[in-house]
Amino acid sequence: MRFKVTIAYDGSNFSGFQRQPNQRTVQGEIEQALYKMTKSYPITIHASGRTDAGVHAHGQVFHFDWPLEEIGEQNVLEALNVLTADDLVVQSVERVADNFHARFHARSKIYTYHVLNQSLSNPFLRSYVYHHPYALDREKLEQCLDLIIGEHDFSSFCSARSDKQNKTRTIYRADLDVNSDRNIWSFTFEGNGFLYNMLRILMGTLIEVGDGRKTVADFKEIFEAKDRTKAGKTLSPSGLYLEKVNYEGESDHE
Amino acid sequence: MRFKVTIAYDGSNFSGFQRQPNQRTVQGEIEQALYKMTKSYPITIHASGRTDAGVHAHGQVFHFDWPLEEIGEQNVLEALNVLTADDLVVQSVERVADNFHARFHARSKIYTYHVLNQSLSNPFLRSYVYHHPYALDREKLEQCLDLIIGEHDFSSFCSARSDKQNKTRTIYRADLDVNSDRNIWSFTFEGNGFLYNMLRILMGTLIEVGDGRKTVADFKEIFEAKDRTKAGKTLSPSGLYLEKVNYEGESDHE
Repeated sequence: MRFKVTIAYDGSNFSGFQRQPNQRTVQGEIEQALYKMTKSYPITIHASGRTDAGVHAHGQVFHFDWPLEEIGEQNVLEALNVLTADDLVVQSVERVADNFHARFHARSKIYTYHVLNQSLSNPFLRSYVYHHPYALDREKLEQCLDLIIGEHDFSSFCSARSDKQNKTRTIYRADLDVNSDRNIWSFTFEGNGFLYNMLRILMGTLIEVGDGRKTVADFKEIFEAKDRTKAGKTLSPSGLYLEKVNYEGESDHE
Repeated sequence: MRFKVTIAYDGSNFSGFQRQPNQRTVQGEIEQALYKMTKSYPITIHASGRTDAGVHAHGQVFHFDWPLEEIGEQNVLEALNVLTADDLVVQSVERVADNFHARFHARSKIYTYHVLNQSLSNPFLRSYVYHHPYALDREKLEQCLDLIIGEHDFSSFCSARSDKQNKTRTIYRADLDVNSDRNIWSFTFEGNGFLYNMLRILMGTLIEVGDGRKTVADFKEIFEAKDRTKAGKTLSPSGLYLEKVNYEGESDHE
């Protein structure tokens, strides 16, 4: 029997999602809990995709096959929450068809990136936002965001370490919400897929346009160059959140 | 020349405010930074009061005397922020009269206590709220809060480890704000002073009324008994924040 599981995690103390020897990872934490639940039957989980060290999730999804006698959704949820640490919370468990696949059936993913835009940093947000102390220009940022909507080659914003040949992805939504009370600038991206470090490199480039080091024309040129070396730095993972994974057949758009 | 300094800190990784040998404390962190600024002249800071390990502050205040040649407020602010870790931020520095005292001249203090009231915990808030998974009754909680307003003997809510003889304190304000979107119940207390662990013991007792283990009449009886052993447990420091210290002569009430 196959289960689809939605989890939230604070990425600060994980060496990313993917299992690695001698590292604390999200996959490792979950598989260890399942190993205890089955009393030593190893289970591999399959996520919608990896997240890097320090990247957070409000709605990561994975599936796995339960190899023993029938077990209820609520029992799986409670057992996993008891057996995992406090920085990871299982939000929902759903029994799904045996052909459901958390990665292959994902229709789109939504990420947000939060920037704290004020001169002083905030001690409570040091692992949860990127702190940028210089003023940002909202209009210019929105012009850049409009440029990336649609189907494009994102080579300029892809880590050289990526092994993906096809660098074309479709962005359905790229927008900016500014909370003036908290000085938090929140960028939301929905797309059919994202390349390795794509959003963090994109954000590093956007920030340079926002504070005036680059122009919107520069951004356009960088984007069209399809050359990683032209773009800005890879921004901190602390501001990045995997918000939601949308699946085929689901109606709940965001 | 005397400076009044307002700071915010995430209490999670501090062994409280007060300097202690071989422990990381807020006072130790600040005094170490001042020691570097003066190139090895030791300075003692005087805070409005201590906070316990794990308790946070949005607006703790201390004063100190600068023993060397004139230095500007902005220079002190920037130097302290460079020389202290990210979980402590100096928000403002103000030159004050030589008779200003951060503790003796405090007119009132405002604390908040945040409770996450939902069945699932939140991985991002594990050090920043107290998580209570059982439903709370707002009306009963507000009835209890009304009872503590005014001048009272708070012996029932004072740690046995306190060395204070006089357990009478005046509470000017005790109220509850519920954020239903985030399931955060925020209790705000303003008073002329607070005994050791007073708010955490009070919260431990209130929570038992809120979820029905005790009645409002029980609370009244406990309060009037002036006996610590009758009250609830000392709730986690993670939900407690020193919000603001008000001083004589200041007009900005909250």
